[in-house]
Amino acid sequence: MTLMEFSIMPLDKGVSLSEHVAKAMTIIDESGLDYRLNPMGTVVEGEWDELLGLLTRCFRTLEESSDRINIQVKFDYRKGVSGAMKNKIKSVEEKAGRRLKI
Amino acid sequence: MTLMEFSIMPLDKGVSLSEHVAKAMTIIDESGLDYRLNPMGTVVEGEWDELLGLLTRCFRTLEESSDRINIQVKFDYRKGVSGAMKNKIKSVEEKAGRRLKI
Amino acid sequence: MTLMEFSIMPLDKGVSLSEHVAKAMTIIDESGLDYRLNPMGTVVEGEWDELLGLLTRCFRTLEESSDRINIQVKFDYRKGVSGAMKNKIKSVEEKAGRRLKI
Amino acid sequence: MTLMEFSIMPLDKGVSLSEHVAKAMTIIDESGLDYRLNPMGTVVEGEWDELLGLLTRCFRTLEESSDRINIQVKFDYRKGVSGAMKNKIKSVEEKAGRRLKI
Repeated sequence: MTLMEFSIMPLDKGVSLSEHVAKAMTIIDESGLDYRLNPMGTVVEGEWDELLGLLTRCFRTLEESSDRINIQVKFDYRKGVSGAMKNKIKSVEEKAGRRLKI
Repeated sequence: MTLMEFSIMPLDKGVSLSEHVAKAMTIIDESGLDYRLNPMGTVVEGEWDELLGLLTRCFRTLEESSDRINIQVKFDYRKGVSGAMKNKIKSVEEKAGRRLKI
Repeated sequence: MTLMEFSIMPLDKGVSLSEHVAKAMTIIDESGLDYRLNPMGTVVEGEWDELLGLLTRCFRTLEESSDRINIQVKFDYRKGVSGAMKNKIKSVEEKAGRRLKI
Repeated sequence: MTLMEFSIMPLDKGVSLSEHVAKAMTIIDESGLDYRLNPMGTVVEGEWDELLGLLTRCFRTLEESSDRINIQVKFDYRKGVSGAMKNKIKSVEEKAGRRLKI
């Protein structure tokens, strides 16, 4: 399984980007993949092809109304591991010996 | 105010990084700055100098026990805006017209 | 056209990564797409599907020998623009009024 | 020594960013640190404090004329290693057994 975090920003729409982010979030929310939105991006868990398919659908949607788009993506692939979305945080809390803000 | 998301990874410690991430998280948790841990990084809200000071303390701590460290950071600066940690997500949910997983 | 910069790092191979980066670079060099290697990643110019296809081939190759892989990618899409690989640098040099180190 | 790659983008200036990038590049070029500009960012080699000082000067300069700024940074720290700017590329070329486009 792979965790993918990404953010997608049109650069020709001024500083208020939430309307455009909302279009991508609707696609993600309806994808059926597990995800978490954070203030700087969205983390999605899935197989490589599912994740790249989702990224492509978000890009294609914003491409319809934007002439310049910046996308930032990070992947964390772990062979044979699933549930990393929750387990990575739990593991860090255990090692830190404290509850952290999530 | 600025939002900073970062992740810090020693490259000479094998695949199990939670012990090292926990050291950084303890520093962040004790900094007094507002933050949220997600499965791919940590988002912190603060002034530029506070954020770079925090990043430096995390680096210095991991530097003690690692010979190679990879750090990824994103900054989102908005003049005169505070509370972006919560407001960015709320604004996206409003535009999407649905509750999202956070 | 889109510019994609990416770096791909196995996390279970210790600190010397050049052998693994070389496998990806061979795939990129033989792709026929225009690219530039820099000390922190590789920039490739192409259409979205070409770029994601290339990224997937690099991932699949490293996946054969690695249990954990970290990938960082940035995309800069500009509708109707080609040649951005060279033109972005030229444009910055003109605005700066000086030759820069490339 | 540490390699830092970064890109800095005002989000309230439309799609043509070269004028703003040029301001940052002038600061970098006059810093005395070794750097290379690529189509997606700039790689600089230096000590941690030098690099964060440079990043801060670039931020402070763009902050004067922008209300929203996005910055992306990657660090690659290697204890006791210098000259990584050139040696990383040379090492990859040797392992790949071919000259690559740089």
